[in-house]
Amino acid sequence: MAHKEFRTLIPVDEAHRLLKQIPINHSTKSLPLEEALGYTLAEHVVSSIDVPSFDKSIMDGYAVRADDTYQAGETNPLTLCFTGSIDAGFVGDFYLNKGEAMSIATGAPIPYGADAVVKVEDTKRANSKVSVYRPVHTGENIMSRGSDIMRGEQVLCRNTRIGSREIGVLSAIGKRYIDVDTIKVGIISTGNELTTPGNPLDKGMIYDTNSYALSASVKECGATPVMYGIVEDEEKAMFNAINRAVQECNLVLTSGSTSAGAGDIMYKVIEEKGRTLFHGINIKPGKPVVAGMINGVPTIGLPGNPTSALTIFNEFIAPLIHNSQDTFDSTKDELTVTAVLGTGINSQGRQQLLPVGMVRGKVYPADKGSGAITTLADADGFIEISAETEYIESGTSVNVTLFGNVDEPDLLFAGGYCPGIEILEELSGLKFRVLNNGSSGGFSSVSTGFSDIAGINMPDDSGNYNISMIEKMKLSDVVLVKGYKREQGLIVRQNSDISGIDDILDKRLINRNRGTGTRSLLDLNLKQFADKMGMSFNNLKESLAGYNSGAKTHLAVCNAVKEGFADVGFGLRTMAENSGLKFISICEEEFDFLVQKEAMDLTEIKTLISCISSKSFADNLPSGISVYERTGEIIEF
Amino acid sequence: MAHKEFRTLIPVDEAHRLLKQIPINHSTKSLPLEEALGYTLAEHVVSSIDVPSFDKSIMDGYAVRADDTYQAGETNPLTLCFTGSIDAGFVGDFYLNKGEAMSIATGAPIPYGADAVVKVEDTKRANSKVSVYRPVHTGENIMSRGSDIMRGEQVLCRNTRIGSREIGVLSAIGKRYIDVDTIKVGIISTGNELTTPGNPLDKGMIYDTNSYALSASVKECGATPVMYGIVEDEEKAMFNAINRAVQECNLVLTSGSTSAGAGDIMYKVIEEKGRTLFHGINIKPGKPVVAGMINGVPTIGLPGNPTSALTIFNEFIAPLIHNSQDTFDSTKDELTVTAVLGTGINSQGRQQLLPVGMVRGKVYPADKGSGAITTLADADGFIEISAETEYIESGTSVNVTLFGNVDEPDLLFAGGYCPGIEILEELSGLKFRVLNNGSSGGFSSVSTGFSDIAGINMPDDSGNYNISMIEKMKLSDVVLVKGYKREQGLIVRQNSDISGIDDILDKRLINRNRGTGTRSLLDLNLKQFADKMGMSFNNLKESLAGYNSGAKTHLAVCNAVKEGFADVGFGLRTMAENSGLKFISICEEEFDFLVQKEAMDLTEIKTLISCISSKSFADNLPSGISVYERTGEIIEF
Repeated sequence: MAHKEFRTLIPVDEAHRLLKQIPINHSTKSLPLEEALGYTLAEHVVSSIDVPSFDKSIMDGYAVRADDTYQAGETNPLTLCFTGSIDAGFVGDFYLNKGEAMSIATGAPIPYGADAVVKVEDTKRANSKVSVYRPVHTGENIMSRGSDIMRGEQVLCRNTRIGSREIGVLSAIGKRYIDVDTIKVGIISTGNELTTPGNPLDKGMIYDTNSYALSASVKECGATPVMYGIVEDEEKAMFNAINRAVQECNLVLTSGSTSAGAGDIMYKVIEEKGRTLFHGINIKPGKPVVAGMINGVPTIGLPGNPTSALTIFNEFIAPLIHNSQDTFDSTKDELTVTAVLGTGINSQGRQQLLPVGMVRGKVYPADKGSGAITTLADADGFIEISAETEYIESGTSVNVTLFGNVDEPDLLFAGGYCPGIEILEELSGLKFRVLNNGSSGGFSSVSTGFSDIAGINMPDDSGNYNISMIEKMKLSDVVLVKGYKREQGLIVRQNSDISGIDDILDKRLINRNRGTGTRSLLDLNLKQFADKMGMSFNNLKESLAGYNSGAKTHLAVCNAVKEGFADVGFGLRTMAENSGLKFISICEEEFDFLVQKEAMDLTEIKTLISCISSKSFADNLPSGISVYERTGEIIEF
Repeated sequence: MAHKEFRTLIPVDEAHRLLKQIPINHSTKSLPLEEALGYTLAEHVVSSIDVPSFDKSIMDGYAVRADDTYQAGETNPLTLCFTGSIDAGFVGDFYLNKGEAMSIATGAPIPYGADAVVKVEDTKRANSKVSVYRPVHTGENIMSRGSDIMRGEQVLCRNTRIGSREIGVLSAIGKRYIDVDTIKVGIISTGNELTTPGNPLDKGMIYDTNSYALSASVKECGATPVMYGIVEDEEKAMFNAINRAVQECNLVLTSGSTSAGAGDIMYKVIEEKGRTLFHGINIKPGKPVVAGMINGVPTIGLPGNPTSALTIFNEFIAPLIHNSQDTFDSTKDELTVTAVLGTGINSQGRQQLLPVGMVRGKVYPADKGSGAITTLADADGFIEISAETEYIESGTSVNVTLFGNVDEPDLLFAGGYCPGIEILEELSGLKFRVLNNGSSGGFSSVSTGFSDIAGINMPDDSGNYNISMIEKMKLSDVVLVKGYKREQGLIVRQNSDISGIDDILDKRLINRNRGTGTRSLLDLNLKQFADKMGMSFNNLKESLAGYNSGAKTHLAVCNAVKEGFADVGFGLRTMAENSGLKFISICEEEFDFLVQKEAMDLTEIKTLISCISSKSFADNLPSGISVYERTGEIIEF
């Protein structure tokens, strides 16, 4: 055999140990006040002004000389001469003589000569005379210049996290720009196949995902991402980009292209321009990771697969950033939670960081492999599985390292897709995570405890729905909640000459994926058609162009027909009409909800079931979907 | 008496009830991908591309026709003809014929005609021949077009919080701009005395604080502030600003100027252009609050005092914004914490929301009154005190509503200011909140349990330091940790003709504030000088210009001398030299640390004490401060 690799991968603990020894420097950047929220002050902030910057009245009333008022009393008011009014925001000079009073507003500057303010409640004014009913002492109701903050006084310490209050203090002393402390993290995506989102996508190209996902992760750690974009998979280009990044940043992350030699290019650049710490961590997906120091700046090459890149970032890099920051949002600290496996995991002794999803504290594996982007959407974090572990039982407690803050759904909804489920989500106020794995997937997801509930529309060979399938599969510990009827049929363009199944033999079909009830229902109809034509079902399938296609959603079927990739699809009236396509009705089917028996006690499931039976649900269903007498019926097995 | 107000203030509960009934609409805004982190998706996101957009190799190896490999085996390899290489990022067309193999990289597009990839480990190449040692089946090691995400497939649901993973998914399908859901909150500051930070400050003017502090608070709630700046305190101007804001925002907040009629102007605008909900809440500082609806948009006038505005915002407005958002960062949800009072509070039956600070879960009052900006710096939140409460005992458990996320310090450090404390903070790695309330403040802060520790430098009448004062004050339950010596003296400009206390009588003094050890030490020296001159101390004080001044910090003293507001100050050599001023040494004093006896068990205090005795502390002290044989000595009382 050829192409064997003999590189030594280092253990996980050793990678942590080596990375922890790396010093990460900090940078200072100047930000306008309104953008500084959440950052950390880079220096002690000293006020360059007095606050208040003038002797200020803290009451509405009259500015006076305290000496003039000593004789005043409730029964024997003292009379002063009214000489004018001073409002807040008055800019100019006033002078107050003995025996005079000036009306003054809260926040207004005290006139020269005055040294106290009598509250308005303790006075009465008639034309040019002000009666004072209570004496005031020197300084009473005056906030003197600099008494709150004196020029030269330190108002905030370095390393203080800037919250709304600090923003308030900084604005009060007139600061427009603030020096904040941050860790600048340079982010470089490598790969000739990468295109920036928003640009057109040539065949053979994919959109750059890591630049954006890693930047967001860096922000979630409270550091500052600096994006260097996409760099060609070539040593000179890589070196130039990394060279610039290590001069401008405190930490540099590259994420590898998926091309053959990419890991080696990154390794070469570090080896030639700096010092290598390690090359490869002995855990899936750590094998391509390379770490080193260039110009005193830690430089780390991550895998190209986005879920792997985020996993390695969260396991090895995020803790470094957190540790290097004296102050950071403590609410972000708890990025590891303990939770219980909702299903067994067959790990077959493969040491790995396995992407997992979480629903109500229960954990299920979410890895679809091969760099699937949908893994990113479904994985809330990852768990570490050791090389000694062959199988982890459902119910085992595991530590989950989260990908940032998790917005946990109320229910994990598997099975067949239906627009009715979106309406249920809207009406119930619940948040679903939907795994469209078809009706077959729904049966196994619920029976293995993987999901709480699944939508199913699976006919048996005689066209009976769901119940007979549950019996045939001998499922126990499940409950069927009868749902509603859906109208299924052919979906064609408006100008199509297809008017029924008889017309589709010489057309291009877009079929649904295997395991969906809709595909099974089409098969049932195609079998009848084959019988009618006197041909075998297998022959019919072989002669039908596109029979082997497998669109994962009804919407994808509609799009394929609409855009001419196919001439005919099979699916829901609702979706056809929403897409502006012609619908040829073939039959009605029963769409039901399969629920784990023990999940029936969950408030979320109870809410959902009462929603299914509600009038508002019935009223909100689109054409092609309708409730009937069995809707909401509960059948135990 | 005149000017009595007869307005009916509504109870707190009623204000909550009325505000909760207000519908707050949401807005949609389009953001570039890199700015969307933390927002909520405003719509279901459907992919407009297939992912991958081409049949893609998931291995490094050889693209082949599966049919060609069926006979391959480990011992009898099958030979194919090598016809070229395809790298990731290759854009163009290749065709593979029967009997051919093309080298292909992970991520590269499968050539037409090929339907499988043999892993490189299962091959050996010699020139134009490729030996295959293992058969592959159709589709093996190929990720087919759209199998991850199909064009038209929904990839993310409306209302999903956008984290790093979602950013990854959105970039993978090429989205450049994202519609996010948000609540736009218009923010208007009113008051003729307001100036925008960064501009020069005329006498009588203050910087606008509320625009920035409220914007930051709105951001902390996950909503979007829209700043309308400063509006003149005049009905027409206010109406125009509010009218524009209610058209562009979902909620409008004004914060009142402090001028007499401001609350009434806001009230009038709401009354005339909309519907008033209430005017005044019966709790300090809720009296000026006015709420109503204009154009269906809730419009609320807050107090002008920044701490009051933030208090009312957090008590009444933040919950409305949180409740109105389906999804928001759950870590921000816990804005109320339970904590224990570290000191008794004399509330005298005044119903109020009292600003408080927090240190290690202990709560102490932080209100300095009269709109002090320093309250903002020290208050972490507020507690509600009912009208029935006269006094709350130390140790009582209270609910604190936080001003956003709190960055709790390790120690509350009261007493005299010293640059040595900053060095201790730096070396110990601890985070202090420093209340510079002078040595006198330090004695009372520690003895009442208000603070853990205080810096003190208080001479008695014979010039003995600290210990005699503790004995005189009969303090128990305290411990004195001996600190270091500080050199105190006169601070003058370099060109000054002052060379000792004898020269200051006809000069302008900048004195420290009452209660500081430094002021007491100057008094001691002035008394000796008065004795020498044969005059009374009182006469000396009266004849010394500026004796009654009260700079709160050493730095403020230095600045006053430097800028010519005063000719001489009294303070530390360290500070004088740092400010480039001339220092005339008068005496050395003992700066010690007073600690609560029960705080001695705290890890933080232990760390601090060992830091005081450490060599690195001694080495890092600036000139004018020095350790001596008693440094670190612990004296119990």
